[in-house]
Amino acid sequence: MTYLEKLHAIQQINQSWVCVGLDPDPQRLPVHVVTRYDEPVLPFNKAIIDATADLVCAYKPNLGFYLQWGAAGMIALERTIAYIPNHIPVILDCKTGDIGHTQGAWAMGLFDQWNVDAITVNPYVGAEAVLPMIGKRPDKAIYLLARTSNPSAPQFQGDLRDGTGLAAAVIETSQTWDVAGHLGYVVGATYPEELAVARQMAAHGNFLIPGIGAQGGNLEAAVQYGADSVAGPVISASRSVIYASGAFDFAEAARGAADQLRQRINTARGLQ
Amino acid sequence: MTYLEKLHAIQQINQSWVCVGLDPDPQRLPVHVVTRYDEPVLPFNKAIIDATADLVCAYKPNLGFYLQWGAAGMIALERTIAYIPNHIPVILDCKTGDIGHTQGAWAMGLFDQWNVDAITVNPYVGAEAVLPMIGKRPDKAIYLLARTSNPSAPQFQGDLRDGTGLAAAVIETSQTWDVAGHLGYVVGATYPEELAVARQMAAHGNFLIPGIGAQGGNLEAAVQYGADSVAGPVISASRSVIYASGAFDFAEAARGAADQLRQRINTARGLQ
Repeated sequence: MTYLEKLHAIQQINQSWVCVGLDPDPQRLPVHVVTRYDEPVLPFNKAIIDATADLVCAYKPNLGFYLQWGAAGMIALERTIAYIPNHIPVILDCKTGDIGHTQGAWAMGLFDQWNVDAITVNPYVGAEAVLPMIGKRPDKAIYLLARTSNPSAPQFQGDLRDGTGLAAAVIETSQTWDVAGHLGYVVGATYPEELAVARQMAAHGNFLIPGIGAQGGNLEAAVQYGADSVAGPVISASRSVIYASGAFDFAEAARGAADQLRQRINTARGLQ
Repeated sequence: MTYLEKLHAIQQINQSWVCVGLDPDPQRLPVHVVTRYDEPVLPFNKAIIDATADLVCAYKPNLGFYLQWGAAGMIALERTIAYIPNHIPVILDCKTGDIGHTQGAWAMGLFDQWNVDAITVNPYVGAEAVLPMIGKRPDKAIYLLARTSNPSAPQFQGDLRDGTGLAAAVIETSQTWDVAGHLGYVVGATYPEELAVARQMAAHGNFLIPGIGAQGGNLEAAVQYGADSVAGPVISASRSVIYASGAFDFAEAARGAADQLRQRINTARGLQ
């Protein structure tokens, strides 16, 4: 099964384009979870996964939020990935972008050892960041940073509407690369007009769309331009879902926030 | 003590600009180490560190090479960093480049929890990749990818000699950022003429220079343009040192290769 087939299947089953970011922040984990467990990351994640697994199309842990707990955090990440039901894609957000044999090591680690379905990749070093990873892995996917969701994104990425900046070059050039796996793109919902341009430029690339939750991106644009010919976009929210409540009801509140986002998306899709 | 002071001190003590990359590759670790230990990474690294600690100015573990061993690799990384003598800077090569609060998590993890002195950062997302990390940490450093050493580097980075491409914009723009820690640059020795331009553009940035070993970069250019006003460059070699031999004499051979590189550099510096 290809990555896109797996993604499309769960999008149909759960009627959802929502991806929940699993980013355990020591400052924001519920106090009663932190005080109850020596290692609170895994129990927190399990509660969030249990509460949302029928509402999402993917989970997206961000590597940085696990590294900050030291090696213990990485053990929690390993166990979190193992705990996520097999039919739900895991996208590891690590924005890696190394060269040649080093990127091969990242691929071996993340795809083979950690068993994630997709990762985010930074294209700064060129094709060598991508080819060693999915050149030979048809069931895996890479989401290449194209247009990130942050305020200083235009600093080096330029404006996609010009068609001349870095983000435009990344989308254009990367589509000529010979990859066995799926090559998708990260395009932030905080730049809705550029999202439309990105979809024109990359008709068949799946989009991972951050910026909808705490960053206030444009949900309608994400829905309108997000879908490709096979699957819907992966619309990601983290803080607005997993920290919807810091009290005893945190898992229930996360479920509520995920479902609300799912329904907003489905309304924009004309599904309900 | 600032990062540059720490770096300069060890460069004087060991008379060395050599940085050894600690990249444990399952395909290349000595067979007798792999068969003797369930977890061979830490014993291998300890042997390399013991054999070279009086010949180097820094150690540079690459995150990808530890992730590929799963959580066990991350425990080995934590212990490797703890094992490196305190007066030798540790540069974690992770090429991270996330945004805002996520990059803050990376900083907390790598600088506070993992206790590394410097890390490599990918500037694709703009200033937000750097400011949350060393905006307030005077004893830490970031090496921003400017001109990477790989063959496809020009694909998006352009040519520094033109002064108009991405790498030029990164060096130029980043020098206007208000940081408390040190902002240095990764500039590959495989592009010697651009190394000269980078030094002109960033007179006070410390350079981390890869590409000297297995990649065949230009040692003389690295020496000529590497040094800044405070310290010498960090000239990094990995495979050519740590896998100089795959037999029982691997540590001794690594010492020999590190010393040979050190002497070649010192000869080019006119020291001996």
